[in-house]
Amino acid sequence: MTRDARPQAMGGVTASEVAEREARWALGLVPQLGGVALQGLLATFGSATKVWEASLPALGTVPGIGPAVARALRRFPRGEALREDQARVARAGLRVIVWGDPDYPRRLQEIPSAPPVLYFRGTLAPGDDAAVAIVGARRATAYGETVARELAAELARRGLCIVSGLARGIDAAAHRGALDAGGRTLAVLGSGLDQIYPAEHRGLAGEVIAHGAVLTEFPLGTPPVRLNFPRRNRIISGLSLGVVVAEAGVDSGALITAHHALEQGREVFAVPGRVHARYSEGCNRLIKAGAKLVETWEDVLSELAPQVRPSRPRRAAPPPPPTLTQAEQQVYDILSDGPLHIDALIVRANLPGGRAASALLGLEMKSLVRQLTGKVFERHDSP
Amino acid sequence: MTRDARPQAMGGVTASEVAEREARWALGLVPQLGGVALQGLLATFGSATKVWEASLPALGTVPGIGPAVARALRRFPRGEALREDQARVARAGLRVIVWGDPDYPRRLQEIPSAPPVLYFRGTLAPGDDAAVAIVGARRATAYGETVARELAAELARRGLCIVSGLARGIDAAAHRGALDAGGRTLAVLGSGLDQIYPAEHRGLAGEVIAHGAVLTEFPLGTPPVRLNFPRRNRIISGLSLGVVVAEAGVDSGALITAHHALEQGREVFAVPGRVHARYSEGCNRLIKAGAKLVETWEDVLSELAPQVRPSRPRRAAPPPPPTLTQAEQQVYDILSDGPLHIDALIVRANLPGGRAASALLGLEMKSLVRQLTGKVFERHDSP
Repeated sequence: MTRDARPQAMGGVTASEVAEREARWALGLVPQLGGVALQGLLATFGSATKVWEASLPALGTVPGIGPAVARALRRFPRGEALREDQARVARAGLRVIVWGDPDYPRRLQEIPSAPPVLYFRGTLAPGDDAAVAIVGARRATAYGETVARELAAELARRGLCIVSGLARGIDAAAHRGALDAGGRTLAVLGSGLDQIYPAEHRGLAGEVIAHGAVLTEFPLGTPPVRLNFPRRNRIISGLSLGVVVAEAGVDSGALITAHHALEQGREVFAVPGRVHARYSEGCNRLIKAGAKLVETWEDVLSELAPQVRPSRPRRAAPPPPPTLTQAEQQVYDILSDGPLHIDALIVRANLPGGRAASALLGLEMKSLVRQLTGKVFERHDSP
Repeated sequence: MTRDARPQAMGGVTASEVAEREARWALGLVPQLGGVALQGLLATFGSATKVWEASLPALGTVPGIGPAVARALRRFPRGEALREDQARVARAGLRVIVWGDPDYPRRLQEIPSAPPVLYFRGTLAPGDDAAVAIVGARRATAYGETVARELAAELARRGLCIVSGLARGIDAAAHRGALDAGGRTLAVLGSGLDQIYPAEHRGLAGEVIAHGAVLTEFPLGTPPVRLNFPRRNRIISGLSLGVVVAEAGVDSGALITAHHALEQGREVFAVPGRVHARYSEGCNRLIKAGAKLVETWEDVLSELAPQVRPSRPRRAAPPPPPTLTQAEQQVYDILSDGPLHIDALIVRANLPGGRAASALLGLEMKSLVRQLTGKVFERHDSP
């Protein structure tokens, strides 16, 4: 159990490295410290060990650290709290990764409020860097759940790890989709690992653990209180290249995850729904605000593909060749003779005008055709 | 009747102006001449009168005029065709506007393929420059028709003229919405005015005539053949500041209207629908390609407002002050004390995180609040 709880203290690691790791872990146990303040402390003093050695006045100079937090930090029973947490973690058989550990999730480490400690069950694999979050409302419609599950399955099938929050509704559908496809999935909690919430998702959590991990920054014993969830959401987006909001009303916490994603420089996607449909309003609003509209997995993968490292050839799909509709193929073939005006195309293809225009739009979107001046189109591979 | 058919030949108009107008009208009667070729001829020779005087070799030098078209133009029985058309128009009691007439629709005159002649029943008012097209599929769902009708009514209520194509489905819903609101509406046909298509919309056409106009570039007797409709669609977008596609599959002619709008530098809007819903695929695809997502009339009007001239104070609504939700108002008030981090906001507002984030997103979209670095927000009116 100790091995699992302290994977980095083994092998060729120096005593001061172990001490620094424990100092970081202990910082994660100070309830008053948020992720951003913590990174400020590390940046100011150079190491967690030095943060613990800093004087009260020195702590007070760090932006974001008020006198109350500085005092709480100085008074914190560091050794005792750490030993207690380590013992609890060992008893519960959890695994722990501390910020700076070589296997700390690479994407998450990049964000300014990266959590100092992650508790988890299951496995965190380097390939999970190619992750996409699929999130949404707890009270979802059958439409939203179906789309979320299908998207998750299709993306998992193509080697992406699906990140979500184990909540009812869309989150659960996203995890299930990844599991359907035999893919990887990570569930991030807003509580300690001993408090799976909602309780009826304990079975789902077990399946997630077998094909990925359930993880949290909250120590054992932390209840799933409301304020933890917005904070949890930054980890969901932080682990991911992009966040897909599959269905959300305007008051859904999924919008917070989208906000975090924007801040962290990650892509934001949303699945549209009917206007005036209460459960789609958040998604439609996100699209208006610039989120990418998602119809299929291709909309997500085409956007993220440049960032997906080919680190897992076993699972990575070859870049999918664009599939063309019959009309698109026909129009594409006709354009092999050179640029044509849309009217000429309609006549040559003998297609209804609408079909021809739609085929051209499709080909434009697949970057196979471009529009010159007027309504003249040519293939991208034209000489 | 003659007065209606030749409104510009009256009053202080010179004989050469009358001749030029008739020369233009006659150019519109040559079936082989498209709008673009026609504008090329006018640009090359300076006037329609000079086009008719041009030699065969001179006509051949105009880009887009092939030898066959040049010959057709030289052989065209200009005087006879014009007298015949004028007589038919007078008998039918139509009104006619010729390109260059002072009351030719201003927006339409701007496009490179502006039709030389417009036949219409009803009235074309200068205020109709503030127009928006609402178009979509003939086979529409109740969802699409409801949204189109409501949008049309709300926009008409705010002084916008609603342009559409009198077709079944979305077009009819758009005209009806404008009529519901007691607003103005224009219907553009793909046939002569004696061939209202579909026939069951004759009653609707009558209502449109009473509150706007039914118009076409096609002479009397032109049947509603398929190839006329893509051509007709450029007039729908040309008359409008923007085109809203309310519901459309990927093979709908409404996508052509959207294409025309882009080309003409007009705004393109689309109403989203559920993914995998056949009748919404065209709209969702347009949004992916950059069209603006429309939930309500405000999404349209906010985009077009700068271009809507306050020419009709009687009907123009005052710029609507942004209406705030209760949560938005609360968050906005709290921010009057200065910038705040989202976490602090959540605590001060005592709102669930999702509601607070959503309120911030809403305020950002209404340009009342901006995000500083991190998750810190401030009011735009902050000192």
